[in-house]
Amino acid sequence: MNAEIVSVGTEIILGNTLNTNTYYLSKKLWEIGIDVLYHTSVKDNPKLLEDVLKIGLERSDLLIFTGGLGPTTDDMTKEVISKTLGLDLKLNKKMEKSIKDYFNNTGKTMSPNNIKQAYLPCNAIPLVNEVGTAPGIYIEWNDKKIILLPGPPKEMKLMFNKYVIPLIHQEYIIKIKTINTIGIGESALETLLLDIIKDQKNPRLATYAKDGQVDINIVAKDIKEEKVDILLDEMVKKIDSKISKYIYSYENESIEKVVFDKLKKRNMKIAFCESCTGGLISARFTKVPGVSEVFDRGIVTYSNESKINELNVNKSILEKYGAVSEEIAIEMAKGLLNKTGVDIALSTTGIAGPTGASKNKPIGLVFIGIATNLDSYAIKSIFNGDRNSIQNRASLKAFDELRKIL
Amino acid sequence: MNAEIVSVGTEIILGNTLNTNTYYLSKKLWEIGIDVLYHTSVKDNPKLLEDVLKIGLERSDLLIFTGGLGPTTDDMTKEVISKTLGLDLKLNKKMEKSIKDYFNNTGKTMSPNNIKQAYLPCNAIPLVNEVGTAPGIYIEWNDKKIILLPGPPKEMKLMFNKYVIPLIHQEYIIKIKTINTIGIGESALETLLLDIIKDQKNPRLATYAKDGQVDINIVAKDIKEEKVDILLDEMVKKIDSKISKYIYSYENESIEKVVFDKLKKRNMKIAFCESCTGGLISARFTKVPGVSEVFDRGIVTYSNESKINELNVNKSILEKYGAVSEEIAIEMAKGLLNKTGVDIALSTTGIAGPTGASKNKPIGLVFIGIATNLDSYAIKSIFNGDRNSIQNRASLKAFDELRKIL
Repeated sequence: MNAEIVSVGTEIILGNTLNTNTYYLSKKLWEIGIDVLYHTSVKDNPKLLEDVLKIGLERSDLLIFTGGLGPTTDDMTKEVISKTLGLDLKLNKKMEKSIKDYFNNTGKTMSPNNIKQAYLPCNAIPLVNEVGTAPGIYIEWNDKKIILLPGPPKEMKLMFNKYVIPLIHQEYIIKIKTINTIGIGESALETLLLDIIKDQKNPRLATYAKDGQVDINIVAKDIKEEKVDILLDEMVKKIDSKISKYIYSYENESIEKVVFDKLKKRNMKIAFCESCTGGLISARFTKVPGVSEVFDRGIVTYSNESKINELNVNKSILEKYGAVSEEIAIEMAKGLLNKTGVDIALSTTGIAGPTGASKNKPIGLVFIGIATNLDSYAIKSIFNGDRNSIQNRASLKAFDELRKIL
Repeated sequence: MNAEIVSVGTEIILGNTLNTNTYYLSKKLWEIGIDVLYHTSVKDNPKLLEDVLKIGLERSDLLIFTGGLGPTTDDMTKEVISKTLGLDLKLNKKMEKSIKDYFNNTGKTMSPNNIKQAYLPCNAIPLVNEVGTAPGIYIEWNDKKIILLPGPPKEMKLMFNKYVIPLIHQEYIIKIKTINTIGIGESALETLLLDIIKDQKNPRLATYAKDGQVDINIVAKDIKEEKVDILLDEMVKKIDSKISKYIYSYENESIEKVVFDKLKKRNMKIAFCESCTGGLISARFTKVPGVSEVFDRGIVTYSNESKINELNVNKSILEKYGAVSEEIAIEMAKGLLNKTGVDIALSTTGIAGPTGASKNKPIGLVFIGIATNLDSYAIKSIFNGDRNSIQNRASLKAFDELRKIL
């Protein structure tokens, strides 16, 4: 069954309202195995809406409309659709009562125009709205299914889950598994997975790049749940055999959460000292709830004085190699380890730009220093992009290094 | 001119990505006076995309496509559109060089499939991508304007503002002025501005909520530039008379930049010590280029020991009032001021959740401490939302307080 989601509303078209309804419905339809092919949004205009409906009826089996079921004259989704389909609108006594009950129960005053919401196209099934006044409508018309839902997300979601899913549900079970990768771009990842991707049907794979990481979604379906689980397991093994070194989680987690879990499991404490990342590593890490169990402190040593005062960095090494150097990255991490007594200390120093570059030290040059009781070292990277991207990539690289050594 | 915005991407259709591109473009097109009638989203599928293009050409004068310009086989927006319009694709030497330069400059490895991005339809105008590899494309075809932009929002926005607006704008001069506000929500702001908004035609106003702040865009147009400037000035004065206390800049800047400029002008140094915000204030501040001139250091004192060791917080006060208290916020700021000798020290301590709340200290409770050579004090706030929102709002509040006292 092919589906199309249609949002009716000038507020969507003018960019006053972000279209989260379509986003929500797409996810839900995908989960229950219905293939969405199109999203359409259209102004509150009878002629434009009629055209959208006609196009939808030609190309889709299931049409879900949201918005335009309110009591005002702007709201005309039901009227236009009924007219286009040649269905008369009739007062539905049950809906009339339900609307009146809603006003009685909430102590609000019913406007005369609310009665318009109790009119339904012939042979349509009304979908009760428990949290608002506009009933939803389910129409079967020439092998097509047409569903009208109100625009307010709370009403729409409740009605979709309670009434619409049972009306359109498919016979198979669908599960989605998300694998998180780091340290490789989306197109390089797809190249490595080409053999798997090119003849995939079930499970299906999709890659999603976000903030310098790439997630892989695996979607499997079957009538039997155990078969779905087997399909997912087999696909995970296949992917693992190609790209295991880039995978940091099979559980759809952030890299910060993975580092936190590893530290917690080994009962270790960590501290950060940041120059070019300016506190971003600490800020990211403290987004994880409960992080205080493993996080001792972070220090943003932006000035040379603060590197000397806070981390006891050797002044002559600082003068000899400069603040952005392998030597200083190591000095910083060792200084922090000594000061705090943590198990791992991590440092960053680099040139985030747009100024500060020199001949041998380009914008994007970043050293990440690691010190433990066993050893200390620094890794050198050159990141592209603007100041924000460089800081972002450097902080990700730091977490990637931590998950590797843990 | 009637416009249609088309998003190409299975990730949009499956509900994995919220369609913020269409939302952004709708607002922008409205600002420059172009009437958007439809939004369409479609899967990465050649036949479906071809149909969408044909429908769009019948009903819209301007078609803006986003997505599907990447290097992988999934990306086929350009190929399908060129074929449907009967335009051959040819290698564009300038674009080839620009893509190769991008890889050289960033130190990344160019995949063989990236070269596909340098092919352009005959007679099309390439739009340079400064922050990625996919060039945009502008096509004029039988009185229609067709624009292809990459899907990543950062690339899309930069190219739309820099290249597309001049290509599609109407015969008059358009100027946009952005006023930045803080400390008030979008709908409360609109209520205060209702008299102005309700009969606006030229200039037009649009509000943009982002990360706890609201920007107001004023868009004025006229044939004469001096008239445009007068329209903008008059509107700024009107807005100022209603909401001046919430305005922190008339120059479209970040609050961090405003604080930086004020510190720099007065030749002052600042330092931060953060508990509940976990480094976010330092991280935000160091996004401003050149911040080292005023930023001494930041310390993330997450544990009680680090508050005592790093900031010399009085242990008995810590035990008496607890880490999340007005007293400790002040102790922290004073300790940091004494340690560093800066002109202003700012501290945060609070309960970001999801755990850590008690009867008198709910989730969202945050104290911000300020110490200078003249005095020290703390302000108490209770923020709503999840851990991320609370940290985000607390850091914004800190910058808002700084810009007020500076």
